[in-house]
Amino acid sequence: MTIGFIGLGRMGSGMARNLMRHGHELIAYNRTRQKAEALASGGAKVAGTPAEAARNADAVLTMLADDHAVEEVVFGEQGIAGAMRQGAVHVSHSTISIALPRRLAREHEKRGQHFISAPVFGRPEAAESAKLGAVVAGAREQIERCRPLFDAIGQRTVVIGDQPWQANVVKLGGNFMIASMLESFGEAFALMRKAGVDPALFLDVMNGLFKSPVYENYGSLIARRQFEPAGFALKLGLKDQRLVLAAAEELSSPMPVASLLRDRMLAALARGQGDLDWSSATRIAAFEAGLE
Amino acid sequence: MTIGFIGLGRMGSGMARNLMRHGHELIAYNRTRQKAEALASGGAKVAGTPAEAARNADAVLTMLADDHAVEEVVFGEQGIAGAMRQGAVHVSHSTISIALPRRLAREHEKRGQHFISAPVFGRPEAAESAKLGAVVAGAREQIERCRPLFDAIGQRTVVIGDQPWQANVVKLGGNFMIASMLESFGEAFALMRKAGVDPALFLDVMNGLFKSPVYENYGSLIARRQFEPAGFALKLGLKDQRLVLAAAEELSSPMPVASLLRDRMLAALARGQGDLDWSSATRIAAFEAGLE
Amino acid sequence: MTIGFIGLGRMGSGMARNLMRHGHELIAYNRTRQKAEALASGGAKVAGTPAEAARNADAVLTMLADDHAVEEVVFGEQGIAGAMRQGAVHVSHSTISIALPRRLAREHEKRGQHFISAPVFGRPEAAESAKLGAVVAGAREQIERCRPLFDAIGQRTVVIGDQPWQANVVKLGGNFMIASMLESFGEAFALMRKAGVDPALFLDVMNGLFKSPVYENYGSLIARRQFEPAGFALKLGLKDQRLVLAAAEELSSPMPVASLLRDRMLAALARGQGDLDWSSATRIAAFEAGLE
Amino acid sequence: MTIGFIGLGRMGSGMARNLMRHGHELIAYNRTRQKAEALASGGAKVAGTPAEAARNADAVLTMLADDHAVEEVVFGEQGIAGAMRQGAVHVSHSTISIALPRRLAREHEKRGQHFISAPVFGRPEAAESAKLGAVVAGAREQIERCRPLFDAIGQRTVVIGDQPWQANVVKLGGNFMIASMLESFGEAFALMRKAGVDPALFLDVMNGLFKSPVYENYGSLIARRQFEPAGFALKLGLKDQRLVLAAAEELSSPMPVASLLRDRMLAALARGQGDLDWSSATRIAAFEAGLE
Repeated sequence: MTIGFIGLGRMGSGMARNLMRHGHELIAYNRTRQKAEALASGGAKVAGTPAEAARNADAVLTMLADDHAVEEVVFGEQGIAGAMRQGAVHVSHSTISIALPRRLAREHEKRGQHFISAPVFGRPEAAESAKLGAVVAGAREQIERCRPLFDAIGQRTVVIGDQPWQANVVKLGGNFMIASMLESFGEAFALMRKAGVDPALFLDVMNGLFKSPVYENYGSLIARRQFEPAGFALKLGLKDQRLVLAAAEELSSPMPVASLLRDRMLAALARGQGDLDWSSATRIAAFEAGLE
Repeated sequence: MTIGFIGLGRMGSGMARNLMRHGHELIAYNRTRQKAEALASGGAKVAGTPAEAARNADAVLTMLADDHAVEEVVFGEQGIAGAMRQGAVHVSHSTISIALPRRLAREHEKRGQHFISAPVFGRPEAAESAKLGAVVAGAREQIERCRPLFDAIGQRTVVIGDQPWQANVVKLGGNFMIASMLESFGEAFALMRKAGVDPALFLDVMNGLFKSPVYENYGSLIARRQFEPAGFALKLGLKDQRLVLAAAEELSSPMPVASLLRDRMLAALARGQGDLDWSSATRIAAFEAGLE
Repeated sequence: MTIGFIGLGRMGSGMARNLMRHGHELIAYNRTRQKAEALASGGAKVAGTPAEAARNADAVLTMLADDHAVEEVVFGEQGIAGAMRQGAVHVSHSTISIALPRRLAREHEKRGQHFISAPVFGRPEAAESAKLGAVVAGAREQIERCRPLFDAIGQRTVVIGDQPWQANVVKLGGNFMIASMLESFGEAFALMRKAGVDPALFLDVMNGLFKSPVYENYGSLIARRQFEPAGFALKLGLKDQRLVLAAAEELSSPMPVASLLRDRMLAALARGQGDLDWSSATRIAAFEAGLE
Repeated sequence: MTIGFIGLGRMGSGMARNLMRHGHELIAYNRTRQKAEALASGGAKVAGTPAEAARNADAVLTMLADDHAVEEVVFGEQGIAGAMRQGAVHVSHSTISIALPRRLAREHEKRGQHFISAPVFGRPEAAESAKLGAVVAGAREQIERCRPLFDAIGQRTVVIGDQPWQANVVKLGGNFMIASMLESFGEAFALMRKAGVDPALFLDVMNGLFKSPVYENYGSLIARRQFEPAGFALKLGLKDQRLVLAAAEELSSPMPVASLLRDRMLAALARGQGDLDWSSATRIAAFEAGLE
């Protein structure tokens, strides 16, 4: 397949390389051109605009930071909506609101194009090693058509439903589950410290209980209070809580834990922690226990 | 070792059987005598009072429902405190407050007796199959002396510190971590249902993400809304939130997520769900989304 | 002064009448034309578009439902921005976000027009009887120029600062204070009902304590659970919590009580209470106490 | 009437003086004897023990700090329960749990004594000037018998019900209403400060809106961040939140705002603010906004 790939950050570049390894032809675009050129040695063509990346592609994949970046790339002057061929498919991997994929589905349909949503779980290392998990939603035949792409970038693809935005609500729900674990760890670790219990011992017990690599990894960061370098910046984590709360409001489904997480991250942001890892939101619990 | 074992509920009877399998002599006491007699075929002697179970024991193990039951068994008229030999050790496996083990340590010490705290993680099936996890705290030599007992009942023993109550704060912290996962699942599942996403699919994605048997088991109960029979009754889950909040208050370490969990479980209790599984607290989130 | 008045709902029509009583000439516009015509007997001219109402006015006053309505009226095809004279002033009385008045200030300035923000506190009866309270912000000389207008519609004008949006943050903060009182009343009344205490007696004690007409009025509605007809609809109250939380996020100032209020109102909306009075959000507390 | 008065702190001594002014005979007891002797010049007899103060009294009034102090004074070795005459009445003015008055009612009844609960609203100045508000519950004829006492100490007596503890739930509910106002003010003022709005202006607007002396007084303390000297110490305010939450749990009536207030005050305590005024809990909101 000929693929237009847009957005070559830490996640996107790993995904793009894996697609080429599986024999797909890539036309790559990135706002900062160098990142696209870094793929040229692997055989990718480099496009000067999103439109150029999209023009001859069977599928255009976007992996971008937020709603605003997606809107620019799709509907901007040199956007892909105006350039994609009839019958081509836009696959959005970004973590975005549930409102934008609804609009994307509508607008692509108007132009005789297809749209599916396929946000991914995993950190840059997982993107590099083709171990992402994808949650996919949209028209079934388009999903099947793109399945080789999902197989190239990840280990596990779960099909959620026929409305693209449904994949996004699952992604936001998953990020909420992780964020909630962070805060709970933060409160528990603060309690342990006030009790004179070594956080490493508490973590050891939790690892025996939950047996989850996610608990192991994040628990270790929080126990050691190692919030730099950021695997995932707090300001982006805050964005995700905002998105899940916006979804909760659109769907009239209150999420008090998500509200609490948002307030914690906002406090961390106000305290200057925006560029630390999002697990540093646990510092607020420590502060409130008189520990910092 | 000669062991007095007090409290033969669903957890205690499994633990007692495993101790006998490892060759320990047991003198068993239970308020409802039949449960003690059920162990007689396995070689246990049956005591008519806690004191009788304690009199000749090297170690007295208690596995009881709450602070009140422990106080009765230890300090009541026929309690173990007045009956244990000098140098004998009381091992408390119960999930109780952090205040009571402090008092127990003090009172046993006055009488020349020892006290260690060793609450356990695991459900009745794990107690039966010797797969519990124990968190232990107290004087190091007493812990070593009792280690064969811990090896008999469980797979994994983590030593927390030299103050018995520190084991209890770890146990309460662990139950808090599980309860917080329940509520987060509840909010996420409500969101999924409002989005028309099959809860089983969301759970499938979470299992791929967390890879934790605890998420798998509880997630499945909540996704299927199967809250009977109760593995762990909501009214007991509420007690645990009360205990962790009491610990948080004693140690001046605020836990807003625990406060929220307490309020959810209290609402569930007020709605008549006290005897359902504690995961049924997630019904409150569903109600608030207009789903029930 | 010649005044263009746009938005003749329950609040706006009372304000408009009081301006005419003070001798100001009015050119009135409302989306539903009848409401504008109802003012004609009092001497108002009726405009067919916002632009027409604005063209010859010294000041254009807008009293509209939300951000969207204000954007339409100002920047729409027949909007006032394109029609107002140089040197004329736009006075926004609406309860809107803090983001929109920033944009309004910028855009009017570009066109040589002035902008001040003057949201009002009070219910329709107060608008009718010229008893509103106004909070005003913007350039000092424009505020002084418009002071006769504020004196015509209300009893009390507080000048907040020189940035128009600052008046809006005060208005949102005030609505938050009222909403928080509602929820606290809701929780306290539920407790009283569970305790067998007559809510009217509790209210009586609170009236003796706070001596506030706001407590008296809302307390009485909640004690009697009389949520219809709506003085202020719950769906509008929810909008206000959304706006204050958006302001809190923009200014990095977490507001956990506002988060809680938002979740309560969202639950009430999900339960079908959108058109009841916003004090009906207290039903959620009653439900959680097992009372409904 | 001959009155035993126990507890001559800042509140109690003012109340005692007003009772003497109305011609009642007083036998006063205080743990620190000097405070009792200070009343002797006004004609009070000074007792060496609670029992001595109670022995010949028609009514024994207690105004003490907490449950523990009341239990001591009533059930201690020289307690009033063993000393009061048959037919005498114990009037408890203290802010205590709802559990203790139930026990007091039971125990006094066993001894042929009466018990009514009459907690008061107001600060020391109001106690001095006989401007307290009393909420009273218990047997109607005992309330009528004591009415001259209530008239001597306050302006306003509201009879709540025939169960003494019902007066205490009203008192706790009232303190909760005030505490919730403090936190809401704290969040709103933090928002204002981040918006560059003078807190005094926001308070001015709130005074115009609520017209409540309680808002005026506390709002002014918080706006000026003047938390010393403490009118009511934060550690006592925290106790009251603990009591209202215990009542909420006993009555199965969740109070999420009260939970939040408890966590805020606990954070303030952990930060060393226990002896500051309870309105200083608002510092936590300010901290989370990055302001301290």
